[in-house]
Amino acid sequence: MLVKTVMTENVKTLKETDTIESAITMMNAYNIRHIPIVDDERHVVGLVTDKDINLALPSILSKETNVTMDHDLKEIMKKNIISTSEYDFVEELAVDFHQFDLGAVPVVKNRKLIGIVTQTDIMSAFIEITGMKHPGSIIEIDVFDKPGIVHDIGHTMKELNTRIVSITIYDNREKPNHKVVVLKINAMNPQRVIEALVDKGFDVVNPYRME
Amino acid sequence: MLVKTVMTENVKTLKETDTIESAITMMNAYNIRHIPIVDDERHVVGLVTDKDINLALPSILSKETNVTMDHDLKEIMKKNIISTSEYDFVEELAVDFHQFDLGAVPVVKNRKLIGIVTQTDIMSAFIEITGMKHPGSIIEIDVFDKPGIVHDIGHTMKELNTRIVSITIYDNREKPNHKVVVLKINAMNPQRVIEALVDKGFDVVNPYRME
Repeated sequence: MLVKTVMTENVKTLKETDTIESAITMMNAYNIRHIPIVDDERHVVGLVTDKDINLALPSILSKETNVTMDHDLKEIMKKNIISTSEYDFVEELAVDFHQFDLGAVPVVKNRKLIGIVTQTDIMSAFIEITGMKHPGSIIEIDVFDKPGIVHDIGHTMKELNTRIVSITIYDNREKPNHKVVVLKINAMNPQRVIEALVDKGFDVVNPYRME
Repeated sequence: MLVKTVMTENVKTLKETDTIESAITMMNAYNIRHIPIVDDERHVVGLVTDKDINLALPSILSKETNVTMDHDLKEIMKKNIISTSEYDFVEELAVDFHQFDLGAVPVVKNRKLIGIVTQTDIMSAFIEITGMKHPGSIIEIDVFDKPGIVHDIGHTMKELNTRIVSITIYDNREKPNHKVVVLKINAMNPQRVIEALVDKGFDVVNPYRME
């Protein structure tokens, strides 16, 4: 899935000379948690998150007044922001989000801001591409790793006239050279499919089979 | 992927009568952002996050002293916590994380705490099952939605002796009854695979083909 499919366009932005109060007002008004800070050419010079704001605010448990609200955003914004392009793959951008513990990444084109992608957007994209919001069932199969696995499983599903929502594959940590295939199908009751897979010699590991 | 595969066991916990200071010390010592609050039977009665702490702390921009540090955690903890079981599928739990904007979910067994799953763990699981950390290439194919798609693509990959890292499928928002298949293969240069797919009549939409 491309970044442009999931990014929010019409990003709300502020300048580094705007106040903390203006950022709080904007976050509350639009229910957002990340505000790119741009210069007059729409180049991204920083990013302010709700975490930056919370650290700047007085304690909710104290009676201190809001003395900090008129400080400039440049006092609390993060600099040296990682950005992405609209034609990058979301799945690959997710690795950066995870590795660098990012909350949001601005999308730029010719160095100008054109959108923003948040961790929530990335999670939403993964849920969509793995079909987890579609009704259906998950079956996990342990397989020896070789080319043709997807073909063989796809063949069995085609024979059963069962639609595959997604197939993902991860290393089986307990068995060297083995993979676990996660098969999401559009059948609410997977029993018929599990039985067909077992009949063909597949090792269905989850859900646990009731004997 | 099961929750027990990704959860952290040996969860650090505190009691609701412990102080905010003890939570800050624990978060810094173990580099964690979520602490389940348990009673003497290890039942989860609350959850304290770094966000709860940040909102309780004095402003980083003020000279106020840390008068709030000795308050009880029960003053700031969240209650009515969503929990999960070790045999739930991570992919399905992800939908709850997204829907309820969760940062972490305690894992319970017989109502006692046995682990914790964070949003970072969920992201990590998605990256693993979609194979995004494996070297290789992503190809997106537009297809008319019918059973057998995975079989047909799997067949072509088997002929090319190309290993499929994952296949995920999402609705094409621009074409009714069409899906976009996201194919991750273990080939750094996807050109040969793209040409074989095009030869068989597949509509490869990304990466854009250079003519």
